[in-house]
Amino acid sequence: MKALEELVSLLTRLPGIGRKSALRVAYHLLKTDKAYAEALADRIAGIKDSIRFCSICGSYAEEDPCPVCSGPGRDRSLICVVEQPQDVVTIEASREYRGLYHVLGGLISPLDGVGPENLRLEALLARLREGEAREVVMATNPTVEGDTTALYLKRLLEPTGVAVTRLATGIPVGGDLEYADRLTLARSFRGRVKL
Amino acid sequence: MKALEELVSLLTRLPGIGRKSALRVAYHLLKTDKAYAEALADRIAGIKDSIRFCSICGSYAEEDPCPVCSGPGRDRSLICVVEQPQDVVTIEASREYRGLYHVLGGLISPLDGVGPENLRLEALLARLREGEAREVVMATNPTVEGDTTALYLKRLLEPTGVAVTRLATGIPVGGDLEYADRLTLARSFRGRVKL
Repeated sequence: MKALEELVSLLTRLPGIGRKSALRVAYHLLKTDKAYAEALADRIAGIKDSIRFCSICGSYAEEDPCPVCSGPGRDRSLICVVEQPQDVVTIEASREYRGLYHVLGGLISPLDGVGPENLRLEALLARLREGEAREVVMATNPTVEGDTTALYLKRLLEPTGVAVTRLATGIPVGGDLEYADRLTLARSFRGRVKL
Repeated sequence: MKALEELVSLLTRLPGIGRKSALRVAYHLLKTDKAYAEALADRIAGIKDSIRFCSICGSYAEEDPCPVCSGPGRDRSLICVVEQPQDVVTIEASREYRGLYHVLGGLISPLDGVGPENLRLEALLARLREGEAREVVMATNPTVEGDTTALYLKRLLEPTGVAVTRLATGIPVGGDLEYADRLTLARSFRGRVKL
């Protein structure tokens, strides 16, 4: 069936959806009510028009500036630097952080041809010059690229006098020493804290 | 972000898609090209209009009757009885079967309030009266409901003189005795074949 095949092949281009999942979704759509399928189709077609980027921090936003950048209750002395817009959504969902954000739009990765000039660094420096920020929290992933980018920023921001910190790396809460990899274990030793 | 939340909540209503997967899909749609999102939306909205049910066998079809029912190369002496339309797609994909199909539209399940009167049994009896079928292969799942339905059909079809068979149950190819459950093992003993 051509229509089914077309839908399945489009669905398999989504992340985390293989052929079997795509077929399951397609069958579900065949059984479900039409109003739902139309609502879903409508949101998929329109998502790129309803969500843009905040011109200050670079995260997803329906209005510009985004509610975080324009929010009166946020701590303007803190800027959390992340790789991509969805990281802001993840951190916001934890309700642990009340400062501002800055999205780099990538990480330094010479192998992929991404250098500092490809990141939103000029905008960050401008924010630091004009704003009230006193600390930049590097929240890039603890990978080679994330660490490299964090170190690069630490050096870049040194002349500004702003403190640069990094999210703690270690064994996750509820995790098991037995399953922690060697690097994580080494880092959690180096970063051990006094009880 | 309201638009993102709406899309995510609609996506989580799809089978096998939890909140994390839905978020991943939504972020992917934000990054991907608009033409793809529009093509996907178009197929999702239209799938129910392009695919209907074959009036003979009850499986999914773009034309009525479906290519299997109207196909000149199919063995009309065999009718494979399945629970739902997608089972036909699954069996067709194996390219092992060249007969016809009949979709019941469910299985007998007193607990769910599904009795024989809710299945497409009249249509099956009519096909057996008019057609050239000599064997009905029960391909319902080897579950309580699938077995009950297969036994019910065996009794119902006894007066017609048509042979009623059932797909073999046993240890799957490439499977391991160690991981076979007790019922599967018991069934594979009872169904043992001469070498």
